Amino acid sequence: MFKQCFVPKWTETAPPKGSYRSVFKYGNPNVFKHPSAKWYEMIKEEFSMTDNDFRARKEEGLLNVVLDRPPVIEARHRERIETIVGRENVTSDDYSRVKYASGKTTEEMMELRKGMVGCVADLVVHPRSKEDVQHIVEYCHENRIPIYPYGAGSSVNFGVRPERGGISLVLSTHMNKVLEVNETNQTARVQPGIYGPAYEDALHRAPELFHTSRRYTCGHFPQSFEYSTVGGWIVTLGSGQASSYYGDAYDLVISQEYVTPAGTFKTHDYPATATGPKVNDIMKGSEGAYGIMVEATMKVYRYMPENTRRFSFMFPTWEAAVDASREISQGEFGMPAIFRISDPEETNRGLKLYGMPGFVDTFLRQRGFSPTQRCLFLGNAEGERSFAGNVARQVRRIAKEYGAISLTGYPAKKWEHTRYTEPYMREDLMDYGVVIDTLETAVTWDKLHDVHRGVREYIKARPHTMCMTHASHFYPQGTNLYFIFLARMDGLDEFRKFQRGIIENIMRFGGSLSHHHGIGRMIAPLMDAHLGPEQMAVLRTLKRHFDPNGIMNPGGQLGLDI
Amino acid sequence: MFKQCFVPKWTETAPPKGSYRSVFKYGNPNVFKHPSAKWYEMIKEEFSMTDNDFRARKEEGLLNVVLDRPPVIEARHRERIETIVGRENVTSDDYSRVKYASGKTTEEMMELRKGMVGCVADLVVHPRSKEDVQHIVEYCHENRIPIYPYGAGSSVNFGVRPERGGISLVLSTHMNKVLEVNETNQTARVQPGIYGPAYEDALHRAPELFHTSRRYTCGHFPQSFEYSTVGGWIVTLGSGQASSYYGDAYDLVISQEYVTPAGTFKTHDYPATATGPKVNDIMKGSEGAYGIMVEATMKVYRYMPENTRRFSFMFPTWEAAVDASREISQGEFGMPAIFRISDPEETNRGLKLYGMPGFVDTFLRQRGFSPTQRCLFLGNAEGERSFAGNVARQVRRIAKEYGAISLTGYPAKKWEHTRYTEPYMREDLMDYGVVIDTLETAVTWDKLHDVHRGVREYIKARPHTMCMTHASHFYPQGTNLYFIFLARMDGLDEFRKFQRGIIENIMRFGGSLSHHHGIGRMIAPLMDAHLGPEQMAVLRTLKRHFDPNGIMNPGGQLGLDI
Repeated sequence: MFKQCFVPKWTETAPPKGSYRSVFKYGNPNVFKHPSAKWYEMIKEEFSMTDNDFRARKEEGLLNVVLDRPPVIEARHRERIETIVGRENVTSDDYSRVKYASGKTTEEMMELRKGMVGCVADLVVHPRSKEDVQHIVEYCHENRIPIYPYGAGSSVNFGVRPERGGISLVLSTHMNKVLEVNETNQTARVQPGIYGPAYEDALHRAPELFHTSRRYTCGHFPQSFEYSTVGGWIVTLGSGQASSYYGDAYDLVISQEYVTPAGTFKTHDYPATATGPKVNDIMKGSEGAYGIMVEATMKVYRYMPENTRRFSFMFPTWEAAVDASREISQGEFGMPAIFRISDPEETNRGLKLYGMPGFVDTFLRQRGFSPTQRCLFLGNAEGERSFAGNVARQVRRIAKEYGAISLTGYPAKKWEHTRYTEPYMREDLMDYGVVIDTLETAVTWDKLHDVHRGVREYIKARPHTMCMTHASHFYPQGTNLYFIFLARMDGLDEFRKFQRGIIENIMRFGGSLSHHHGIGRMIAPLMDAHLGPEQMAVLRTLKRHFDPNGIMNPGGQLGLDI
Repeated sequence: MFKQCFVPKWTETAPPKGSYRSVFKYGNPNVFKHPSAKWYEMIKEEFSMTDNDFRARKEEGLLNVVLDRPPVIEARHRERIETIVGRENVTSDDYSRVKYASGKTTEEMMELRKGMVGCVADLVVHPRSKEDVQHIVEYCHENRIPIYPYGAGSSVNFGVRPERGGISLVLSTHMNKVLEVNETNQTARVQPGIYGPAYEDALHRAPELFHTSRRYTCGHFPQSFEYSTVGGWIVTLGSGQASSYYGDAYDLVISQEYVTPAGTFKTHDYPATATGPKVNDIMKGSEGAYGIMVEATMKVYRYMPENTRRFSFMFPTWEAAVDASREISQGEFGMPAIFRISDPEETNRGLKLYGMPGFVDTFLRQRGFSPTQRCLFLGNAEGERSFAGNVARQVRRIAKEYGAISLTGYPAKKWEHTRYTEPYMREDLMDYGVVIDTLETAVTWDKLHDVHRGVREYIKARPHTMCMTHASHFYPQGTNLYFIFLARMDGLDEFRKFQRGIIENIMRFGGSLSHHHGIGRMIAPLMDAHLGPEQMAVLRTLKRHFDPNGIMNPGGQLGLDI
C-alpha cells in the first residue's frame, strides 16, 4: 500500500538570467537545498499551514530587472572614471546596478520578489588595481561622488546599499589574487576581493603556486565562506566556524593597505609593536566608511587535516552544555576549532531535520534526556596531532563530568557537509511565505542565560514562531548567541518591527549589537545607544578625518553620518 | 696561600632619604645586585679598565634634591585642586616634584647624579577615585593645565616627564585596588595604579578575598613587574616574560574606562564584537596622551604552577636557535610561556655571569659547541597538565632536530630567580662610569637576522662595547629582539648620539620602533618616519579629539604634539 504524499514544488531550476530572483538567490544559481519531508511536516504543523498553502509559489521574482531610474551621474564624471579603469570595467545597465546594490537581507529578498528596488548606484565600477582605486577615490573625493565598496554581496545588514547613488565599486572582479605566500613569516598577502574558496585553494596548493614546503589553510570558514571575500571578512569583523581555535577575522590580520580620501597607507607587518594606538586595528571593522582596503597580509596556518579529531555529545540540559563549554574554554589546554552547542529547540528540530536513528533516541530518552531539554554539542580539534588529541580527550572528560553522552564523531562530520548550505533553504521557504532569518550577538558568560531567555521569550511570544539558538564562537570570557527564527510573515512592516524587537531585546538583556555580522545600516540606528556618545564621537571623528567629504559608503553605514 | 683580590666598593646602603640617588635607584631601596667577580674581571678586560678605575664611586647623587624653580601654578588653581582631592593629596615640595617627574632612562640617571633636574610639574596630585580624576581633568581642561599621569615610574623613554609643568597625577597612591574578580567570566576589574605583585597576590588569594573556587594569575610578568602598574602595562603596550603563551598587555585587556577632556566612557566587556572599530583598542598604547585610564577589566588565568614544565637547551648556532624557535612558534601545539633565546655574545657572557659547571662546558666544547657560536634557549610550558607536557615534548623534539643539547630544566629555574633583578646592576656599574642600557624592537622572521646583524655591527663598531641580544616574545609571525649594551661613556652627549644611532639602525634594517617599551618622548621624533604621515595623522586626529586643549601628557609624548 502506498500513501499519497504531497511534496511542494520546490524550485529546481536556476533563476532566469537578468531576473530579480537571480539577484537575491543565495550562492550558486544551480544549487538548491530543500526542506526534508520531516521539516515540511513540522513547518505545516508549527505554522498551522496545510498542503494547500504550498500549492503555488508566490512572488518568485522571475521577471527581468527593470529600473525606472536612469543614472544621474554627469557624463564628464563617467568619462573620467572610464578613463581610469577602462570602459569595459564600467557598467550602468539596470541589472548590474541592482545586483551590486543588493545584499542578502530578508527585506531585500522580500522587496526584490515584488520587483521593488531600493537605492542603486549610477555606475558599477570594477577596478583592476590599487592604482585604479587610488585614482577613483581621489576623483570621487574631489567631486563628492559616493563610493560603495562591494565584495561578494553576502551582507545581511544593507552594508552595500548605495543610499546616495554614485558608484558601486566591485573589488572581487579583478582584485582577487593571492600575491604572495611568505612561508618564513607564515603569512599570505592577498587582494581584498578574493573569495574564500579561491583563497583557501591557493593556500592548499602553496607548494605548487608559491614554492613553499608545506600546505596552508586560512583558518576562516564563515557560513558565507563560498560567497564572501577576505576584505569583507576584515572590514565587517567576521568570524569563522573554526574561530574558537583560529581566531576571528580581527585576529587573522597582520597588516593592511587602505586607500582613503585622506591618503593611502600600509601598516607594518610586525607581529606586535608598542608604537602607540594601532591604525591597523582601527581600520578593521570600518565597513567601507573610512576607505577601501586594497591589500591585506594575513596569518596562515599549517594545513594538517589528518590530525582533525571530531566529537559530538548530548547534554541533558542547556545549562549543562553551557557550563561544560565554559569549562572547556577556560581549561588552558587549547581550544577546539569547531565548537557548537545548540539549545533544546535547535537540538530537537535539528535532529528532525537531519535524522537521528530511532534506537539512539530511545536510548537517550531512557537515560532521561528529554527532547525538550537535551542539547547537542559538536566540534572538532585541529592543530598538531598530540595537541588535537589532548583537546579531544579534555573535551570528552569535561563533557562526561557535566552528564553528557558521546554520540561519536559522526554528527560532527555530518554537520560539516551542510556547513555552507543552510542559506540555500531560505528561498524555498519564502516561496511559500515563510521567513527564515538570523540575528546574533556576543555575550559574557554571566549574561548568556539572560540574553538567551529574554530574546527567546520575545520571539516565542509571537504565535507560531520558531526560534533555534546556538553558540558557536567561544572565548575564555564568553561566547556568541546565534538566533534563527522562522515565521509566516505577512509583509515587510511586520518583519521589520519584529526584527527590531529582537535586536532591542538583545541589547536590553546585555548582548552586543553584533558578534560577527557587522552593523551595516540595519543596526546602525542603535549604535549610539549601544556604544554611548563618547565612543561614537571617536568613530565619527575618524570618519571626518578619513572622509571629510562623506563619499565613503555614506548614508547610515555604521551610524556615522545619518 | 691567599691571593689578594680587589673588590670594588659596591653601594650597600639605601640612598639617603630625599637624595637624588633615591629618585633614580631602581626598585627597593634596600635591594642590591652586584656584578660577580667574573663579571668584574670581564668588564675590566673589555673596557681596558683597571682596579684603579674602581676605587672611587663617581657622581653618586647622594645630595638632597634641591630645585631652583618654585611652582608657577596660580594659587587659585592649587586651591581648586586641593578642594577636589583633599589638601593631603597635593604636594609641591622639591623632592616630590622631582621624584614624580622621573623615569628610569640612563639619561635621567646621568643627570640626577650630577644634581641636574629636567622638567618638573608644579604640583604632585594623588587622586583617590575616578571622580577625583574626572574633576581634575575637567578643571585642567578648562584652565589649560597640563596633566602628566604617573604609575610606578619605570618608564625608559621619558613617558612621565612633565615637559610643560602643570601637575603630575599619581595613580598608584590610592587607585590601586582589585575591585572584583568575576570567576564566571574569568576577569578581574582593577584600578590602574595597582602594582604587579599586589595584583598577582590578590589573584592568588582570590578564594579568600573574592570567594572564588579557584586561584588565578594575571599572566603578565615584565622585568619591571615589581615596579610597574597594570595601567602602565596597558597604555605603553607592555609585554611580559610569559607573553608567548598569555599574550601581550594588548591581548589581556577586555575593557577599559577612561577620563578624557572629551568625556568619560567605559567600553563593553564582550569577548569579541563586530560593532565597528574598537575604541577599547584605540586607547591601548595611548600613553596618557588621550586621557587617564581609571579602570580596566582584565583577562585572568587559572593559576596552576604545579603543571609548569621547564626546559633549557644549548644550540650550536644562533641560526639553529632561531630556526627551532620559528618551528616551535608555528607548530600548532600551543606556545611555551617563558621562551627565550640568547645570541652567542649573551650566551657566552651569561654563562660567565651565572656560572656553568666546567664539565658541562668541556662536554659542550667537545661536541663542537663553540663559545663564540652556541646559543642558550630556555623556557617553560604552563597551562593544563597534558597540554604543558605536550608543549615540553614538542619543544624537546624540535630542539633536537636543530642540533640542540638539553641542559635540563635547571638553567630555566635559575633564570627565574633573577627575572626581576637585572635592573639593579645598573647603578653599581654607573658608579664607576659604565653604562648599561637596552633597546628593543619587533621583527618578522624574515628580517630577524638583518636587524640582529645590522644593529650589532653598529654597536660593535664602537670600540670596547658589549652587546648582548635575546629574543623573548614569540609569535607565529615573528619575535622581538632585545639589545643590551654596555660601554664606558664620557657623558650625556656621547650616550645620546650612540643611542640614537642604535634606534636608527633598528629602523634601517626593518625592525619596529618598539616591541614593548613604548615610545614616550625618547623615540617619538622617529614616529613620523616610522609610521608615515597618514598613520601619524590618524593618531593626531584622535589627539585633537580627546584633548583639544593639549593638556594630556603634552610635549612630545608619542610624537603627537611636537
